[in-house]
Amino acid sequence: MRILGVDPGIARTGWGVIRIQNSEFRIQNYGCVETAAGIDSSKRLKYIYDSVVNIIKQHKPDVLAVEELFFNTNAKTAFIVGQARGVILLAASQKNLSIATYTPLQVKIAVTGYGRADKSQIGQMIKTILKLNSIPKPDDVTDALAVALTHAFSKKMSFLTKKGLIE
Amino acid sequence: MRILGVDPGIARTGWGVIRIQNSEFRIQNYGCVETAAGIDSSKRLKYIYDSVVNIIKQHKPDVLAVEELFFNTNAKTAFIVGQARGVILLAASQKNLSIATYTPLQVKIAVTGYGRADKSQIGQMIKTILKLNSIPKPDDVTDALAVALTHAFSKKMSFLTKKGLIE
Repeated sequence: MRILGVDPGIARTGWGVIRIQNSEFRIQNYGCVETAAGIDSSKRLKYIYDSVVNIIKQHKPDVLAVEELFFNTNAKTAFIVGQARGVILLAASQKNLSIATYTPLQVKIAVTGYGRADKSQIGQMIKTILKLNSIPKPDDVTDALAVALTHAFSKKMSFLTKKGLIE
Repeated sequence: MRILGVDPGIARTGWGVIRIQNSEFRIQNYGCVETAAGIDSSKRLKYIYDSVVNIIKQHKPDVLAVEELFFNTNAKTAFIVGQARGVILLAASQKNLSIATYTPLQVKIAVTGYGRADKSQIGQMIKTILKLNSIPKPDDVTDALAVALTHAFSKKMSFLTKKGLIE
């Protein structure tokens, strides 16, 4: 199974593709889609959409993992991030990916075991779990890999539970 | 010139197409794209996107008029409306429409001449200006026609100014 994790944003959309292989997690690719501030919103959204469509074509993920709505922010930020998230969900839906959403708390607990983990702790765990040489930058990429890993853990858990290997 | 006005929403997206003809405004068509609450967000967004793509194909507008970000709401609403607005801007951008945005205040002043106009006053003016038999329902349609009319007024004003007919 291949999982595409995305951290949507109008300026930077982080993404990463993780493979579950023999119940191990392997990184397939990751990156960051950047758009410049001076450009029309609609053109930036089109660029993000086109980029995600290409990522899906190239890496053929089965599922998109993305963070749930967040409420501890202001309406302006939520509106702008919402627009970017909208075109990403659209791309996934058009390509028949299933969509899994997790709250920021679920992601922190899944990746670090600790609900108040900070960015550097999450980055360190990502690096360790995925056997990377360094913590991916910018943070948007780490966040995208974190939500992809959360889905990977969730799939692994339900597999082990079904097999009766854990309760 | 044909103007597509849209009032984005996940449950209801109002839309209306207005034609400027001999400096008169004529309504071409209007409607409301509705999606049911029980369905996945991504499928609802895809339905809204597909509907707007079809509206553009059918009515061939030159421009999309849509309200600017609004900040007098909570982050959850802004996030959800943002997602719907994102896929609508994407559809317009893919079809090479230009995009015009207006604040709620600009819309009220353009349509009623009064910045504190309520929904019923706006509806009444829409009905009068566009020579309709009744006020279109639901409110999302009236709001879509209001932002389309705002752009129509703005185009008419700049035309009259260029011709030296007003200062």
